[in-house]
Amino acid sequence: MRIIVLGGDGFCGWPTSLKLLDEGHDVLIIDNLVRRKIDKELGSNSLTNISDPDQRIKVAKAMIGGNIDIVNTDINNYDELLDIISVFYPDTIIHFAEQRAAPYSMINSTTRRYTVDNNITNTHNILSAIVEVNPDIHLVHLGTMGVYGYSKEFGDIPEGYLNVKINSTEKDVDILYPTNPGSVYHMTKSMDQLLFQFYNKNWGLKITDLHQGIVWGTQTEQTRKHETLTNRFDYDGIYGTVLNRFISQAATGNDITVYGIGGQKRAFIHIEDTARCVALAVQNPPSKGKVRIFNQVSEVMSVKQLAELCAESYGGTIKYVDNPRKELAENDLSVSNEGLKSLGFKPITLNKGLVDDVKFIAEKMKDNLNVNNILTSPKW
Amino acid sequence: MRIIVLGGDGFCGWPTSLKLLDEGHDVLIIDNLVRRKIDKELGSNSLTNISDPDQRIKVAKAMIGGNIDIVNTDINNYDELLDIISVFYPDTIIHFAEQRAAPYSMINSTTRRYTVDNNITNTHNILSAIVEVNPDIHLVHLGTMGVYGYSKEFGDIPEGYLNVKINSTEKDVDILYPTNPGSVYHMTKSMDQLLFQFYNKNWGLKITDLHQGIVWGTQTEQTRKHETLTNRFDYDGIYGTVLNRFISQAATGNDITVYGIGGQKRAFIHIEDTARCVALAVQNPPSKGKVRIFNQVSEVMSVKQLAELCAESYGGTIKYVDNPRKELAENDLSVSNEGLKSLGFKPITLNKGLVDDVKFIAEKMKDNLNVNNILTSPKW
Repeated sequence: MRIIVLGGDGFCGWPTSLKLLDEGHDVLIIDNLVRRKIDKELGSNSLTNISDPDQRIKVAKAMIGGNIDIVNTDINNYDELLDIISVFYPDTIIHFAEQRAAPYSMINSTTRRYTVDNNITNTHNILSAIVEVNPDIHLVHLGTMGVYGYSKEFGDIPEGYLNVKINSTEKDVDILYPTNPGSVYHMTKSMDQLLFQFYNKNWGLKITDLHQGIVWGTQTEQTRKHETLTNRFDYDGIYGTVLNRFISQAATGNDITVYGIGGQKRAFIHIEDTARCVALAVQNPPSKGKVRIFNQVSEVMSVKQLAELCAESYGGTIKYVDNPRKELAENDLSVSNEGLKSLGFKPITLNKGLVDDVKFIAEKMKDNLNVNNILTSPKW
Repeated sequence: MRIIVLGGDGFCGWPTSLKLLDEGHDVLIIDNLVRRKIDKELGSNSLTNISDPDQRIKVAKAMIGGNIDIVNTDINNYDELLDIISVFYPDTIIHFAEQRAAPYSMINSTTRRYTVDNNITNTHNILSAIVEVNPDIHLVHLGTMGVYGYSKEFGDIPEGYLNVKINSTEKDVDILYPTNPGSVYHMTKSMDQLLFQFYNKNWGLKITDLHQGIVWGTQTEQTRKHETLTNRFDYDGIYGTVLNRFISQAATGNDITVYGIGGQKRAFIHIEDTARCVALAVQNPPSKGKVRIFNQVSEVMSVKQLAELCAESYGGTIKYVDNPRKELAENDLSVSNEGLKSLGFKPITLNKGLVDDVKFIAEKMKDNLNVNNILTSPKW
């Protein structure tokens, strides 16, 4: 297939692009490299050294083979996006091109507005361009489990749609899950769902929305093939995801900092599974009908469990700090991931080999770690 | 009270501003006058002659008295918006500053993208500025009945929230009504709801969302006070609302053009009631708690009923044309408007005096009517 990966230079986008290349697809990455710029803005950094995009592409072609390229542009430039889609004429577009950190979206009015304007305009530009160029293109979007919220009010978490009885009519219907986002970032993903719903209804677009859990790990089968292909690894309070932060804290002799009492149960997925799930969705486009929503998750754990696991395995002291986020101190969670499983997904669960892999990287790169970046989350 | 009216030069915004002025409030209008520019773009026009904004303000001060002013700026300029709110320091902000025509939003990718970018950025800028300047400001937003969709699937239309039983838990809950917008424009109002929900939850903002029916009429008690205060009157296929279009067609000897079989039942409200309802919401801000949603409607009629009424009263032939919109050919509709009634709203229903008022204007201004503008709706 011919596949455009929007945001293909990022933490999830890059390993997914390589996975698709490895499976024999022709891949065109479009990225404005803003994530690299935000590192400069925040004074944060990837723990791993990440190569220049052009270097990455050169080595990917040499080590994996096939067709891959990158265009450095911002898809808020609609005419440029339209030109690229018209010329490359993809079967599938994968959309990672959103500001993806909840804490970043909650720093101040500038980051709030950037997150809303960037994410909504990008998602809508893509939909509008698909209508114009070829309504048969399959759009695969990376959503988030965070749209559901984490209360048990609506029971176990289904995949995108909730079965309810309308009390006034006594009819059973499936409705789009009533979202309860916990940050401006998560709110934009809830808004994306309404864009997808309407473009699917009015123009029949084929859309897969993958509500992903919290990603951990850094390397995949493909990024390990050469140092230049190494994926980025965030450990800071803004972009670092919780398990990666814990492992790097433990590996570098720092306290493991848990927000609140760590009673937040969350769904997790290894970066290798991110790439595999997206590839599965691409290979199996949805039939006509409503937007297809899958939960892209491997297992559910509490934050406290993760911290204890890291402390036991690698030493380090757990330090409980005030939770900067407005969220429940404790919650139960049960999530369906039957959709991707039905396509053949076999989740990788937390295992020592993979955790050791992350620890190895954290130890090896410990000179890159700036302790001041660990507790940088804004309070909201 | 000190009130900012965003979009206060428009069809609903202008008579509402005058109503609030007449009730003794201090009114500051902010408007980028884009609606006047769109007339030039489309080659459309208001049937009535509308005066320059500065003239309107001058005459409003003379005829009604009190404090009213206008600033010509675009609130997508956040810093300017922030400055104005900080200096004027309003108790209430009323938000009419959105692209408001479903047909306009469906013309092409440029108008689709303009509608999304303009409406979402504006709504979010306002919310973000309220958080920054004074979270106690009451935001009153003009939403639309169109967010509900017009199927009977969910029973009679309640006010914003729907009572359902979650089948997996057997618990009864009120959820935000699962929206089913029929155009890109209506979709943006559905997205606005998610912005309101989150800003209310996270920062406790006081928000009233008024889901308005289709407005008809043109003059109000205040706009009648002087020719310079006359409200705009759209009769074209893009911005003209259905009853106004029918009356002006009948009054000028043209066919009354009904989309499809006219079986669409819709909720209607006279422009005088728009101003009265907004004034009621302003005078009675919500207590803390979730977003307050009212249906701002006076009565339900079918499009065919309206056409027949116009044909009987004023002559003219009804012509049924292909419906350019994707919507049900026929639907039933029952809408609650208890919220505004509980604040004292007494709906004006369709009556001969008011219809004659519109007819008089249409006849008097018939030289302004360009027949080519009547069937200009895009197909979607």
